[in-house]
Amino acid sequence: MENPVINALVSKADIEHFSGLGVKVVHNEEQLDAKYNIDALGKYHGDAQVALFPTSTLQVSNILAYCNQRGIGVVTQGGNSGVCGGAIAHQGEVILCLRDMNKVRDMDVISGVLVAESGCVLEDLDNYAQKQGYTVPVDLGARKRCMIGGNVSTNAGGLRYLRYGSMHGNVLGLEVVLPDGRILDSLFTLKKDASGYDIKQLFIGAEGTLGVVTAVAISLAPKPKASQLAVLGIPDFSKIQRAFVSARQNLGEIISAFEFWEKRCNELVVEYEGYDSPLSNSHEFYVLIETRGSCLRHDMEKLDGFLECLREEDLIDESCAIRDAVEMEKTWLFRSQMARAHSKSGHMHVYDFSLPSKYQHELLVAVKSHLVAAGLYGKPGLQVSDVTIFGHIGDDNIHLQVIAKEFGGVVEETMEPWVYEWVGSHGGSVAAEHGLGSHKGQFLKHSKSPLLIETMMSIKQLLDPKNIMNPGKHISRA
Amino acid sequence: MENPVINALVSKADIEHFSGLGVKVVHNEEQLDAKYNIDALGKYHGDAQVALFPTSTLQVSNILAYCNQRGIGVVTQGGNSGVCGGAIAHQGEVILCLRDMNKVRDMDVISGVLVAESGCVLEDLDNYAQKQGYTVPVDLGARKRCMIGGNVSTNAGGLRYLRYGSMHGNVLGLEVVLPDGRILDSLFTLKKDASGYDIKQLFIGAEGTLGVVTAVAISLAPKPKASQLAVLGIPDFSKIQRAFVSARQNLGEIISAFEFWEKRCNELVVEYEGYDSPLSNSHEFYVLIETRGSCLRHDMEKLDGFLECLREEDLIDESCAIRDAVEMEKTWLFRSQMARAHSKSGHMHVYDFSLPSKYQHELLVAVKSHLVAAGLYGKPGLQVSDVTIFGHIGDDNIHLQVIAKEFGGVVEETMEPWVYEWVGSHGGSVAAEHGLGSHKGQFLKHSKSPLLIETMMSIKQLLDPKNIMNPGKHISRA
Repeated sequence: MENPVINALVSKADIEHFSGLGVKVVHNEEQLDAKYNIDALGKYHGDAQVALFPTSTLQVSNILAYCNQRGIGVVTQGGNSGVCGGAIAHQGEVILCLRDMNKVRDMDVISGVLVAESGCVLEDLDNYAQKQGYTVPVDLGARKRCMIGGNVSTNAGGLRYLRYGSMHGNVLGLEVVLPDGRILDSLFTLKKDASGYDIKQLFIGAEGTLGVVTAVAISLAPKPKASQLAVLGIPDFSKIQRAFVSARQNLGEIISAFEFWEKRCNELVVEYEGYDSPLSNSHEFYVLIETRGSCLRHDMEKLDGFLECLREEDLIDESCAIRDAVEMEKTWLFRSQMARAHSKSGHMHVYDFSLPSKYQHELLVAVKSHLVAAGLYGKPGLQVSDVTIFGHIGDDNIHLQVIAKEFGGVVEETMEPWVYEWVGSHGGSVAAEHGLGSHKGQFLKHSKSPLLIETMMSIKQLLDPKNIMNPGKHISRA
Repeated sequence: MENPVINALVSKADIEHFSGLGVKVVHNEEQLDAKYNIDALGKYHGDAQVALFPTSTLQVSNILAYCNQRGIGVVTQGGNSGVCGGAIAHQGEVILCLRDMNKVRDMDVISGVLVAESGCVLEDLDNYAQKQGYTVPVDLGARKRCMIGGNVSTNAGGLRYLRYGSMHGNVLGLEVVLPDGRILDSLFTLKKDASGYDIKQLFIGAEGTLGVVTAVAISLAPKPKASQLAVLGIPDFSKIQRAFVSARQNLGEIISAFEFWEKRCNELVVEYEGYDSPLSNSHEFYVLIETRGSCLRHDMEKLDGFLECLREEDLIDESCAIRDAVEMEKTWLFRSQMARAHSKSGHMHVYDFSLPSKYQHELLVAVKSHLVAAGLYGKPGLQVSDVTIFGHIGDDNIHLQVIAKEFGGVVEETMEPWVYEWVGSHGGSVAAEHGLGSHKGQFLKHSKSPLLIETMMSIKQLLDPKNIMNPGKHISRA
């Protein structure tokens, strides 16, 4: 599977066949290159000659049956907001874009279970859910662009994992087209189900390598009646962790996010996005806390008590509670634009790790030293201008950014595989919520055992024996 | 796989081999029959001649490697509290009892992740967690007897699924011994992990048919600072559902359980367990609501407001809020003893379904009519004395009890497959939280498609090609 033999050439007859299925086909090179052959950060470039836009599960089934028989590789694409190249066709595969499968199929207002097609944009789906008194239990910076099928396929974690948990818990059912075109109807809407192996779980986080997720049944959370934010200025990393433990104790059931970023991240958003800093003074670290509850008066009392507690324990230098809707939105935008601000400041090498909390700050120190020792960082004019971390404290998920003059090259060679080895040897995972994509499969061995990788490989072989689904990506033994 | 050829005869040489591994071996027939060859309800009887009690993962590995090579079937047993025969050795398999693997291996007080061996009793584990400021996110009536490995292997749902969600979301890692003895180390403690297929999910709910779960890493929930109960008397089923929607709106983030039972269940607990009814008057339906929060004053205000709301909307005839710890425990005991009270009143045929809420009460009506039409129920002295439902409204999980003069026989023939067909054709699942066990695999086809069952079968074939793990149980194409 490491060196898949796939038929990268799509012939005129193939295109005619796809058109004959009633599927919209785009094979204009310019259009493909501008929208479908490049990723969100402009790092990964593909060479697909054809993109297909099915409008039904049956069309997807017909497309896959044909591609499987012909040995044509298929890369599924949703909002194309990924940052690991997972949705880019590097080997001339056909792009199967699900953006036109964007209907809500069902919504049960008593149980709060929503059934939606994969091409529904996350933000649209949340707006829909909110009108019914619910909220989608996953949210991330790319919400205006990413689609629910992609969220499931990358096992997206996002900003409120701390409160709502993982896709593996919230997704109740999936409709999946298998690589040979058969439709696996697992679109159940029941919360408890102990009847057989939970096959759908395999497709959560499979990044389109086992089949195409065409619809999702997801258990929604009740829409909060009250929400508020607090931003904290914190002088050192260990105090962030103490503040987190205190938050879980004091805010209990109402805490819904606990994000952090460091000084340089704050400066970049101010500089490149033109936003005001959420605090008056400059701090080594910033924390953004959100609560979601059913009674603002209760929640305010809890938050004020918590902030008082932090001050008494001397954990913060500044704090600010935000209850005005416009100000809250601005503050979330500040956090959401962090990745974009980084990418505007240079070529961003982004790493997405899960790491036990005790090693998170140590990672940053180690990376900086490593780059300084390699002569790439530490003085003006060198290859690397910035090394930063931000992320989700509650989930042990940190994003490491290395901003360089160019993609790849000496920076990538210096960082990799070194940083993956470091993370693996400190009990971390080489991919937390962005997925493995086209590049990170080779580092999987640093966080997963040979037997576990072998088992993954055998599942891939079982479900996609002709290896047409996103070939050469995701898992690898290498 | 439907008709497994396994070596049911365990020879003297085999027993000597197991002893030589340093494993405790029980092969006294009387002892086996009294404790390991009979299930919790006394319905299923096994004929194992040998039970093994390993104390380490390595011992489990050695046992499985040997059994796999010899073709000896293995039935894993924990607390043996199951009610579907899943842990009973019907074909002379070896019983692998994990009760002596009962250590807590690790507990991270910052992240709240607990790593425990499979033989830890659920209640003991929760007591341990509570001392560290956390609570185990699954709880069920059998808490004093069931073990965490069995909870995972049966995908237990329990009383607080509504609040804490499923095993698929809360279990972060598993250590599993594969049927050939290899140890699959997937015992991760990271919350977000998108590096490869989530293989451990396959073992959650596999009922010991794919390997032996020897240790579990589970994300704990913060221990609530405040808890309270309310019991409601409700005149008809539709009002229960309206009360549930109102509870989610009014109690929001603090609701942790929403249980219901009908009049006859209440009477049985009073009659056979000697408990006082939690309400003064008799009602068609009873609802038990629990809140768990971080401020009792806030939570009391929310609960009182909610009860007021129910009265205004004329949804309840009686209500009672309970805040005294002793009274709360008594009330939970009343609910927990429901299954036992039923089984004392006769031979209990228990069914465990997930069913869309709109069909739940209809099921009870249909079952009663069906049994009346068959001449089995409706008059004193007939085969069936009682037909009842109780369950977890928030999870669409209902338990149906048919109390008869004997197990099996005409009652079972009349009920099955009819009731499974009924549930399947109304969008339900034939097993919600009790598992498929030794009997229900044949009814799987009523809630899962042929392709889905075929995919499950191929996973079984992949991981247990010699079919030694719990042979003849769980899934079936039949």
